[in-house]
Amino acid sequence: MSSHSRLNTTDLNYSQARLAAENPLKIMDLSLRDGHQSLFSTRGRTEDMLRVAELMDEVGFWAVETWGGATFDSMHRFLNEDPWDRLRTLKAHFKKTPMSMLLRGQNLVGYRNYADDLVEAFVEKTAENGMDIFRTFDALNDYRNFEAVVPVIKRCGKHFQGCICYTITEPRMGGDVYNIEYFLGKAKELESMGADSICIKDMAGLLAPYDAYDLISSLKQSVKVPILLHTHFTSGMAPMTHLKAIEAGVDIIDTCMTPYAYRTSHPAVEPLVMSLLGTNRDTGFDISKLGVINEILEKDVMPKYRQYLDDTKMSIIDINVLLHQTPGGMLSNLVNQLKEMGNIDKLEDVYKELPRVRKELGQPPLVTPSSQIIGTQTLNNVLFDTDEERYKMVTDQVKDLCYGLYGKTPVAIDTDVQKKALVSYSRGETPITCRPAEVLEPELEKARKEISDVSDRAEDVILYAMFPVTGRKFLKWKYGRENAPLNGFQSPSAADGVCREDGLKNGSAKKEDAPPKGIGSRAKKFKVAVEGDVYEVWVDDTSKKPVLRDIKLVRPDTSSHAQEHHTHAVWHESVERTPASESGIVISAPMPGMIVRYEKKEGDHVEKGDTIVVLEAMKMENAIATPVSGTVKSIGYNPGDSVQKNAVLAVIEQ
Amino acid sequence: MSSHSRLNTTDLNYSQARLAAENPLKIMDLSLRDGHQSLFSTRGRTEDMLRVAELMDEVGFWAVETWGGATFDSMHRFLNEDPWDRLRTLKAHFKKTPMSMLLRGQNLVGYRNYADDLVEAFVEKTAENGMDIFRTFDALNDYRNFEAVVPVIKRCGKHFQGCICYTITEPRMGGDVYNIEYFLGKAKELESMGADSICIKDMAGLLAPYDAYDLISSLKQSVKVPILLHTHFTSGMAPMTHLKAIEAGVDIIDTCMTPYAYRTSHPAVEPLVMSLLGTNRDTGFDISKLGVINEILEKDVMPKYRQYLDDTKMSIIDINVLLHQTPGGMLSNLVNQLKEMGNIDKLEDVYKELPRVRKELGQPPLVTPSSQIIGTQTLNNVLFDTDEERYKMVTDQVKDLCYGLYGKTPVAIDTDVQKKALVSYSRGETPITCRPAEVLEPELEKARKEISDVSDRAEDVILYAMFPVTGRKFLKWKYGRENAPLNGFQSPSAADGVCREDGLKNGSAKKEDAPPKGIGSRAKKFKVAVEGDVYEVWVDDTSKKPVLRDIKLVRPDTSSHAQEHHTHAVWHESVERTPASESGIVISAPMPGMIVRYEKKEGDHVEKGDTIVVLEAMKMENAIATPVSGTVKSIGYNPGDSVQKNAVLAVIEQ
Repeated sequence: MSSHSRLNTTDLNYSQARLAAENPLKIMDLSLRDGHQSLFSTRGRTEDMLRVAELMDEVGFWAVETWGGATFDSMHRFLNEDPWDRLRTLKAHFKKTPMSMLLRGQNLVGYRNYADDLVEAFVEKTAENGMDIFRTFDALNDYRNFEAVVPVIKRCGKHFQGCICYTITEPRMGGDVYNIEYFLGKAKELESMGADSICIKDMAGLLAPYDAYDLISSLKQSVKVPILLHTHFTSGMAPMTHLKAIEAGVDIIDTCMTPYAYRTSHPAVEPLVMSLLGTNRDTGFDISKLGVINEILEKDVMPKYRQYLDDTKMSIIDINVLLHQTPGGMLSNLVNQLKEMGNIDKLEDVYKELPRVRKELGQPPLVTPSSQIIGTQTLNNVLFDTDEERYKMVTDQVKDLCYGLYGKTPVAIDTDVQKKALVSYSRGETPITCRPAEVLEPELEKARKEISDVSDRAEDVILYAMFPVTGRKFLKWKYGRENAPLNGFQSPSAADGVCREDGLKNGSAKKEDAPPKGIGSRAKKFKVAVEGDVYEVWVDDTSKKPVLRDIKLVRPDTSSHAQEHHTHAVWHESVERTPASESGIVISAPMPGMIVRYEKKEGDHVEKGDTIVVLEAMKMENAIATPVSGTVKSIGYNPGDSVQKNAVLAVIEQ
Repeated sequence: MSSHSRLNTTDLNYSQARLAAENPLKIMDLSLRDGHQSLFSTRGRTEDMLRVAELMDEVGFWAVETWGGATFDSMHRFLNEDPWDRLRTLKAHFKKTPMSMLLRGQNLVGYRNYADDLVEAFVEKTAENGMDIFRTFDALNDYRNFEAVVPVIKRCGKHFQGCICYTITEPRMGGDVYNIEYFLGKAKELESMGADSICIKDMAGLLAPYDAYDLISSLKQSVKVPILLHTHFTSGMAPMTHLKAIEAGVDIIDTCMTPYAYRTSHPAVEPLVMSLLGTNRDTGFDISKLGVINEILEKDVMPKYRQYLDDTKMSIIDINVLLHQTPGGMLSNLVNQLKEMGNIDKLEDVYKELPRVRKELGQPPLVTPSSQIIGTQTLNNVLFDTDEERYKMVTDQVKDLCYGLYGKTPVAIDTDVQKKALVSYSRGETPITCRPAEVLEPELEKARKEISDVSDRAEDVILYAMFPVTGRKFLKWKYGRENAPLNGFQSPSAADGVCREDGLKNGSAKKEDAPPKGIGSRAKKFKVAVEGDVYEVWVDDTSKKPVLRDIKLVRPDTSSHAQEHHTHAVWHESVERTPASESGIVISAPMPGMIVRYEKKEGDHVEKGDTIVVLEAMKMENAIATPVSGTVKSIGYNPGDSVQKNAVLAVIEQ
């Protein structure tokens, strides 16, 4: 081991040509997927990627990550971009460098396990459209969830990279569950499944440098395929972790270009290149080429995305990750949700409840979707439980987890919790032990029929099958059935400019800039310029999914060109509607979220406990039940509507 | 060496108490000096330091840096705070932890070599007021410049920490000048001078991890006193450099609390504490104590300083440092100056000229003041030189450097340049070879007399001696002879709130928010709330020294309390004044800056080439000469006034 523990430095002679290293470190660039997903709410647009794609293709990256993860969702939901188009377009520009995607195993690029027929179709179409490397993970490290995708990846002749999600339950690697034996066992499983490479996926930045050294050293001794390290900067340890992993012999490291680096993203590539210069692991990269790309990204691209950066804190690391061993994004989501609900005083309760819920639910790694499942349930417990009763409001996803629909948790789920969660569960009260997808009915044909009114293209059907609500919306935009939302608002492009005007923090001054009546007091005013028109808009962005609240044309563009080509589309659907005056029992939203579907319609008779409406919050579905029996007098919203806390979802007449 | 190259990790057993490490790493916290100097233009106020001083005193830091560097200048110039008061106040709160200051050798806390009598008085008073550790550096690593301060430090029974300024001329450590032998030689010099510890001062973040390993390993073998590493995050290499230095046996590492960390500051302490947990170099720090301090800093302190943060770029590292081996601050200063002069197209010329000027001027390390000396001269050469003549406009500081007034440069200064710079130099045309301060006349008594109209306190006289222009201003404020500038503008305190309102980026929309006539188009509008009054102010902050341009009370506070206690001071002195209409030769400012002094007065006869006015730009003094002979018809400003480029400094009648 000690021979790996320091790199060999050849005497640098700057007058001579740089010699090729003995074992050059390979680099995968994540800027175009994880970079903007981590820093800019996955809002990166294809047009901005194309500014640097060909330059990046010349650097010598082992691969570039360009697709998958949240990009598929974000593109069709927020950017009005067809994800399949981006894949083909980027492939045309990355002529030398393999492209990689993040695949959530049986969850594909969504948030639940999909049926095998959909999974197979997705992988096949993705390969067909140009993807080279399928970085595949499962939130529970249950590799039965890879069984449907791997044969398709292999059949298409593509690279299967298997991930081991890294997590800890102690201050550092070790303890009863996530010890080195656990990770070695997982690596051997992946190798035997035919993995072409193995990725340690440390999505929370929890891997400490000396743990990385031990882990990578052991992996290099135990498995033959290349080992890749993916660790986020979030906790601030990542640059040190990179270096110790490199000394331990890691083959490939994930980094970002500087403007997409650090904070909750990854360390930048440039300091690593210079640090390894002249060593036996010299990347061989030309730093000046990286400089050129950097300058374009910083000057031409960043100004458009800056608004999405979370700049609520000065600190660029989150030391709560070090204090709580929990992903930063998960913690800040919880904090934000608590704040919006006016319950921030319960934060300490959340910190206490979180490890308890995690343990009771089988000690899963904390990554999408398990982080949301654990997080939402923790919040529900803190907010709704009583001294007499825990798990009073169990989310549908926790029910699915308890049933076994996500796979096998690393340790067994607490039997009492499991039993309670599965009372009246639609699929049955006895958990399954088979591969989860085995109990799922095929779903592709159903989706094809449902969306046949809009499109019958295979890629469109797959998109719709994964995202029925937002997918239908997007496809209607795509085929001109509906006007897309005001482009300049959701996604500033070259022609548009967005400028945020914060209200003055001083209490009394704020009144001058108070939002129009009916708009939350925390909304922010923006001026949005679209093709010369300037709008004053109030945006409620506290949920991290901005909701347009009010729009006012403050300076019309009087040029005929603009008037000819400009549609004044107003996205009005999210404006709050409160039934004028009604008698009956009001069912209001316990949290802000999006309406997924109503399970009852006006006039239906309902029994106490029946689910009336399903509300998505923090990407999790929550079934909202009626506390009384009676008749549904009114329904407040439509599927896809965003609602605030206490919005009247329905009224029941007893 | 290989035994140092990896830390010993004991098996972490989380149920047991944490064992004391074999050789715990010691930590010096820099938040209260270098932290805010690096990130917030040295604007940290004592009141905000007191919020955390006692908590920080409990952490177990080896020392806390709290004073010196630019703090002395910033406090009296911008904050209307007495630097000596801060020293005494903080000392009263850091009861256990030694306090450290940054001392610029014979330059003290200013920008030129002071005479020995002033130097001795400064060190004595600093020790007397409570300083424990004197971290001392010289920009040229010429330790003759330590000869005046060291005996006083020792006589006062204080800790003398000698610095070696780290710099490179090649992509990595090595080459003809800054090779490992150079640094070992300097360390031995320091040890023989009685250094209690030695600091590798890498102010630009140039030290790469494996160079640090080699350097620290060699130092640990060659000298006996503790070795300390000070490396900035600027280039992104610092966390890796820290780790390799720790493996090589460094005794003490400089870090900041997270909100004051990263960017051009230092890596944060918290990731390091967790990374070393359970190793033979475990700091032993309680991470939860650090968490408490962090939260106070982030929530209560940061909102006041955020406005000073340079947020013009998304990137939090500066890869130009890696590309050009030049300090980031120096590069961005040059870029900003070029932009303000409308010569940004000459940036590539600057990059080419910079290493040439540096070499010709003796290859000095690049740190205050040598970085400014080299930077300003580079700029002058690029802007004013012709094909026939180089060094057309030589700054006073370059003349001083060529004369030997800063000390001996690491390699000899180019003789042609030296000769040219010293033509008609006031001290003589033959450079000195003795210790620079030997040629300086005592200056304390002169200063005492000059300021005797305001104060005769020793500390006040020392302050005035170092900063005659701004020092006199400050002392007048201190003793109530003049009204201090509007407090809420320069230094928001707890009672005040500042809110920036950017103009809309869209060109036409900007007109709506255009600054009042006579104010530069790049000025920014702020709303400033002071004790309930809201002012709309236009601030021209392009020079990084905000200049108040216009102030308008937009919402008076009508409460009687506020009216009683509130003085509506208006800082009017920087408003541009242009002589109405004059005939004659106009001498205008070649760059934005501050008037230091006029060398001629109205009515004086002047010869072509005489210095008319001395203009400070980038902390460097530039002598502005008349291109013609004649009579001074008018003088445009007073000492201390800020001027923009092309401001009319004087008019000469031929």
